[in-house]
Amino acid sequence: MLFSQDEYQAYQERLLKTKREMEKAGIEVLLINNPSNMYYLTGYDAWSFYVEQMVIVALKWEQPVWLGRQMDAAGARMTTWISHENIIGYPDDYVQSLTKHPMMFAADYLTEHGLDTAHVGLEMDAYFFSAYAYETLKTHLPNVQFKHAGLLVNKLRMIKSDYEIEHMKKAGRIVENAMYQAEQAIYPGARQCDAAAQIYSGLISGTPEYGGDYPAIVPMLPTGERTAAPHLTWSDQPFKDGELVIVEMAGCYKRYHAPLARTLSLGKPNERMVELSKIVVEGLNEALDAVKPGVTCAEVEAAWRKATSRYGIEKESRLGYSTGLSYPPDWGEHTASLRPGDQTVLQPNMTFHMIPALWFDYEGIEISETFRVTETGHEVLSNYTRDLIIKGDLDVTPVIS
Amino acid sequence: MLFSQDEYQAYQERLLKTKREMEKAGIEVLLINNPSNMYYLTGYDAWSFYVEQMVIVALKWEQPVWLGRQMDAAGARMTTWISHENIIGYPDDYVQSLTKHPMMFAADYLTEHGLDTAHVGLEMDAYFFSAYAYETLKTHLPNVQFKHAGLLVNKLRMIKSDYEIEHMKKAGRIVENAMYQAEQAIYPGARQCDAAAQIYSGLISGTPEYGGDYPAIVPMLPTGERTAAPHLTWSDQPFKDGELVIVEMAGCYKRYHAPLARTLSLGKPNERMVELSKIVVEGLNEALDAVKPGVTCAEVEAAWRKATSRYGIEKESRLGYSTGLSYPPDWGEHTASLRPGDQTVLQPNMTFHMIPALWFDYEGIEISETFRVTETGHEVLSNYTRDLIIKGDLDVTPVIS
Repeated sequence: MLFSQDEYQAYQERLLKTKREMEKAGIEVLLINNPSNMYYLTGYDAWSFYVEQMVIVALKWEQPVWLGRQMDAAGARMTTWISHENIIGYPDDYVQSLTKHPMMFAADYLTEHGLDTAHVGLEMDAYFFSAYAYETLKTHLPNVQFKHAGLLVNKLRMIKSDYEIEHMKKAGRIVENAMYQAEQAIYPGARQCDAAAQIYSGLISGTPEYGGDYPAIVPMLPTGERTAAPHLTWSDQPFKDGELVIVEMAGCYKRYHAPLARTLSLGKPNERMVELSKIVVEGLNEALDAVKPGVTCAEVEAAWRKATSRYGIEKESRLGYSTGLSYPPDWGEHTASLRPGDQTVLQPNMTFHMIPALWFDYEGIEISETFRVTETGHEVLSNYTRDLIIKGDLDVTPVIS
Repeated sequence: MLFSQDEYQAYQERLLKTKREMEKAGIEVLLINNPSNMYYLTGYDAWSFYVEQMVIVALKWEQPVWLGRQMDAAGARMTTWISHENIIGYPDDYVQSLTKHPMMFAADYLTEHGLDTAHVGLEMDAYFFSAYAYETLKTHLPNVQFKHAGLLVNKLRMIKSDYEIEHMKKAGRIVENAMYQAEQAIYPGARQCDAAAQIYSGLISGTPEYGGDYPAIVPMLPTGERTAAPHLTWSDQPFKDGELVIVEMAGCYKRYHAPLARTLSLGKPNERMVELSKIVVEGLNEALDAVKPGVTCAEVEAAWRKATSRYGIEKESRLGYSTGLSYPPDWGEHTASLRPGDQTVLQPNMTFHMIPALWFDYEGIEISETFRVTETGHEVLSNYTRDLIIKGDLDVTPVIS
């Protein structure tokens, strides 16, 4: 058996909760395109989300249906708990064709199964549910009433089971190791690509006890003036003495993420950056101290704002977001953000990436933690110095667990 | 200067060609969400496609506009050739919000610039243009006539310049090196994740002369019975003696890809697999020999079909697809496929990944080449033995250039 009794039970509960939410929303059939939600409900795990695929949950069906490309049906049989007769492949000539679209096949499937007059929920803002896919469905299912299912399944993912938390803690260990690799690999004269290679290698090898999965985002490595912009990757140019380097990445274990960002200074940093790093860490610490069940996301952000405004610092962008299970291109869950106005109430085993990053005209700094909400406060998933990491300064030795 | 005069000139030509196609299609304003097309026209390169962003080309504007998240505007200023006043950031509270959507900002921008009654083309089937984004645009631009721009820019990318071919050849060298790393790292007892780590490291370190970029798909590593399914990644379990392992990956240089797949046997393979590998290579060779300008994609596939049907082999899925510049989740261009019915006529400097993969109930085989169409035939981008690679057999030493 691929799944333990406990795991199988967990899938049944997730399915039940999904159906309960569907009923509340007046949705009889839910088409799930978000790969993370597909995995959450069925275990399906493959890099096949570049073609149309979905999990169909119908209130009247006992099991979900996996519908995807014929060649990927074998992977669905291998990685999911659902019966093989519920794994439906569409022929290859639907793929990236100018005359056929996989959503025509999906529409036919729903019609054949008497669901062509149902209330059908769609993940309208999912990455891999294109405008054209939607138009095709509408054309071929003229009697369906479509509903915006929004983040129906994403929301169920917010509170993790203890089993999921264990996965995320493993991811936290993995990213600690990779950050240590980063410290070793980043030095003046080393090529950025060689450092990225070593970091990636660390993320994927994981630990001697368990290996790493691919994170939903590649390690980001803005360097020098490029630290003023987030989301830049590496080049093949060498690091230079005096440069700042930001490493933002996530450990990943069985698709569960623990992101972590640190900033390195190659040689003595300027005084302003030393000051800024202290302010960021102070704000980070105070915001983490504000975390406990019952508090809102906005209140956590306010703690950061209060701590840093003393120093005249204002951060325009959000302080963090819920994280956990994910596929590319994002390790965020899209449900809750640590920012003004977000009234999401923290509950135990919610998990967030708190990333107090500041960007200026010619430099930037990022120092982050991934945490879970505990019964009384918070627990961070990685154990790594929060200081600005100064290469060459032996007093700043990382703590590796 | 970030760009050489030649590069700058290339961008101007691409923009001109895009505008010419827009005119033909009756499109006055084109919203480009596909990250590869954004890069192609402006040079924009960051892992920011997990939030809404676009390049806007208007017939009446001299330059394109980059519109994206405020924090990514700095990256746009650093990586594109366009004027800084044409780089427009939306505030962070539009990101993953339940009340605001970045397409509202985009609609406002178009309205402010008098484009709210224009004929606006959309990349309706691009990965990161969601159904909800489309609905939001329609609601906020009620007087716009939207058009399906389809693969307008993708098609321009099909024929590469010599400069782009040089990039792809570098990617071809990178993937050769990584395949050699794979051969070293895959052996009975080694953990799959450790092999994946070494392969990835090879892809990103690249060569001593130039480094690698992240490929649009992670290395795929189906092993044992999982070779029956494409698109599965690694686990942390050890390889076993007697197993088959498929390695499918791409070298990537400055976002240009050269995919390559090989199949390894850990120890002596069964006779059926040896036979199959010979048939696949024969079919691959004959299909490659059929490549030359003037021939259609369907005719190339027919050459494969003719060669392999002698042995009773039938491949249901397409034999290959155009490749080149790309971002996750796919290194294909979505324009042309090597399959029956595709009447795309080959022209010099078109580039394809030909991947004659066969999957059976409990095993599979993949042996592929990326090639460019030359004036008289084809040229493969990597130099690597096409044989089934048998670990432990010293006669099968890879040729590394």
